[in-house]
Amino acid sequence: MAKRLLSNFSWMTSPYIVAAPMRIMSGPELAVAVSKAGGLGFIGPGAKPEDTVKDLAVARKLLEAMSVTTRPASSTLKSIIPVGIGFQLWNGDINAAVIAVQKYTPCAAWLFAPRDGQKDLDHWIKTLRDASPATQIWIQVGTLQEAVEAARSKFRPEVLVVQGDEAGGHGMAKNCLGLMALLPEIADALKDSGISLFAAGGIADGRGVAAALALGASGVALGTRFLASSEARISKGYQNEIVRANNGGTSTVRTTLYNQLRGTHGWPEKYSPRGIVNRSWHEHQANVDFDILKERHDDAAKKGDSGWGPEGRLATYAGASVGLIHDVRKAGEIVKSLQEESRDIWKVKSKI
Amino acid sequence: MAKRLLSNFSWMTSPYIVAAPMRIMSGPELAVAVSKAGGLGFIGPGAKPEDTVKDLAVARKLLEAMSVTTRPASSTLKSIIPVGIGFQLWNGDINAAVIAVQKYTPCAAWLFAPRDGQKDLDHWIKTLRDASPATQIWIQVGTLQEAVEAARSKFRPEVLVVQGDEAGGHGMAKNCLGLMALLPEIADALKDSGISLFAAGGIADGRGVAAALALGASGVALGTRFLASSEARISKGYQNEIVRANNGGTSTVRTTLYNQLRGTHGWPEKYSPRGIVNRSWHEHQANVDFDILKERHDDAAKKGDSGWGPEGRLATYAGASVGLIHDVRKAGEIVKSLQEESRDIWKVKSKI
Repeated sequence: MAKRLLSNFSWMTSPYIVAAPMRIMSGPELAVAVSKAGGLGFIGPGAKPEDTVKDLAVARKLLEAMSVTTRPASSTLKSIIPVGIGFQLWNGDINAAVIAVQKYTPCAAWLFAPRDGQKDLDHWIKTLRDASPATQIWIQVGTLQEAVEAARSKFRPEVLVVQGDEAGGHGMAKNCLGLMALLPEIADALKDSGISLFAAGGIADGRGVAAALALGASGVALGTRFLASSEARISKGYQNEIVRANNGGTSTVRTTLYNQLRGTHGWPEKYSPRGIVNRSWHEHQANVDFDILKERHDDAAKKGDSGWGPEGRLATYAGASVGLIHDVRKAGEIVKSLQEESRDIWKVKSKI
Repeated sequence: MAKRLLSNFSWMTSPYIVAAPMRIMSGPELAVAVSKAGGLGFIGPGAKPEDTVKDLAVARKLLEAMSVTTRPASSTLKSIIPVGIGFQLWNGDINAAVIAVQKYTPCAAWLFAPRDGQKDLDHWIKTLRDASPATQIWIQVGTLQEAVEAARSKFRPEVLVVQGDEAGGHGMAKNCLGLMALLPEIADALKDSGISLFAAGGIADGRGVAAALALGASGVALGTRFLASSEARISKGYQNEIVRANNGGTSTVRTTLYNQLRGTHGWPEKYSPRGIVNRSWHEHQANVDFDILKERHDDAAKKGDSGWGPEGRLATYAGASVGLIHDVRKAGEIVKSLQEESRDIWKVKSKI
């Protein structure tokens, strides 16, 4: 991994495990727990732009008890805090983002879902770097083309998170491809760029970590696995469904149906989210009228935790790795076992 | 890997590399070259059912010069030949298959694409085992459900080939999932079954081999990489396009359009092939009438090698790993470098 990358993350232990910035659900408790265990936790976008500053304030409080190194490579730069922050660009508020990174200097900012591609990314990168030079820029991509454009930009990021089709939540609606073929092709195209690659999508245990690193990633980013952590900011019904669901290929699907049911509008058309299917989906497939589905969805939303599950109707964004997740665990334990499992796999394989 | 599995493949060297039975294109020259190098080559279905016997006859001739062990575990069984044979069930001729395996005792028969699911598979397995007890049964699956059904059947196969969405040619039309999430979930479900898993889809170099084995596979099966081998039975124009194409996520797509253009009818609806897009696809996307596309396709088919490529119109079935393939090489060299590259990866990783 590039020296510059490493220097910002001196508390991290190898292999590098990252908790992805899931909207609302990746709060400061989760991010701090992951970083404390030698990983890197990202705080996700909040319901409102100003939530980011609040979450970072909580994170810093939690971190005051931690003894992790927070000094960046260059002594001319401000000390960073060992959590990252995620921004969703198409509806993000760049002014709120600037205030947040200036005040708290998170070690990294993860940018995702621009409405206008590299042009929007460049604007955000330039603005955030001006506001907080010590904060690294991570960009999430889902295609070779996006990766190449990011590497060619004069506002080149330090890290690209390569998201495979297996990932939960919003990813590419079309042309999405599994990590097995996507990651090595991007690695080849970017091999002289100095950009580090992190792999995301379908990884939930040490097997996925070992596989992603074999494919050329410097580390991995996980979302769904951390939804089933004690520190996730998630409804119990939602979390129960992550633990219960299996058969990721059949029980999860990419569809914008749940966005429509929730009244989430405005996502650029190139993105579509993967989630666990339930009655809303099955009735939609059976051609039940949308207005009826919406009514039933809104009723279910009033009922709390029973709104999720196979008989539920609420959005349950999750990755295709749900079938590998069988329990709720402390985030720090998840980090440690991901590392141990992947190390054990290499030990065995290297003897073949 | 299960003892019984290994005993049938004593000439193979680890990690186990298999050349998948691609229809017509995997001929006896390719299969023998792969087995000779310590892998396992499969002969694909021919244009007509009786081609299988002819291809096996050629393979045996080629093998007479080889010094590989061909004795199966039990001395009561007939000696096997160290190549496998693939059968496409929905339009396969079980009587021709019986004649072929009885006469040549291939080490393994790879069954794919039943019209009627496990029922058809059971019928074929029972019939082939009666005809040639020394021939192992390999079944290709694309979902957890298919894998579980195969394992529960009283005609349980020795090997399941788990095909991820990244694969070229025919695979699941819906619910298809990348290997990253699909393989570990199937491995968990089948861990006490005694069935070995081979991974297929998106693997074209040692990175993919190392990753698939980390995910729980005993070996890997490659198709597209062997299309770009000297021994493949493939038109030059087609092969050139495998070498040229890159950006697998965008340049390949699952569609039945090319089946329709070629006049290939009858595939069960659950299957759809991945291939490299060209003018037929782009004009189809632009709503050009099918009859016009068909006319243009048929004209292109008369023009030979120029019918393939970005300006071509012919079916170019290929996996999403095309962007990792940059040259035509001897099949034996491909096997060796897949093995060496994956071993090198583990060596490096085990030191982390």
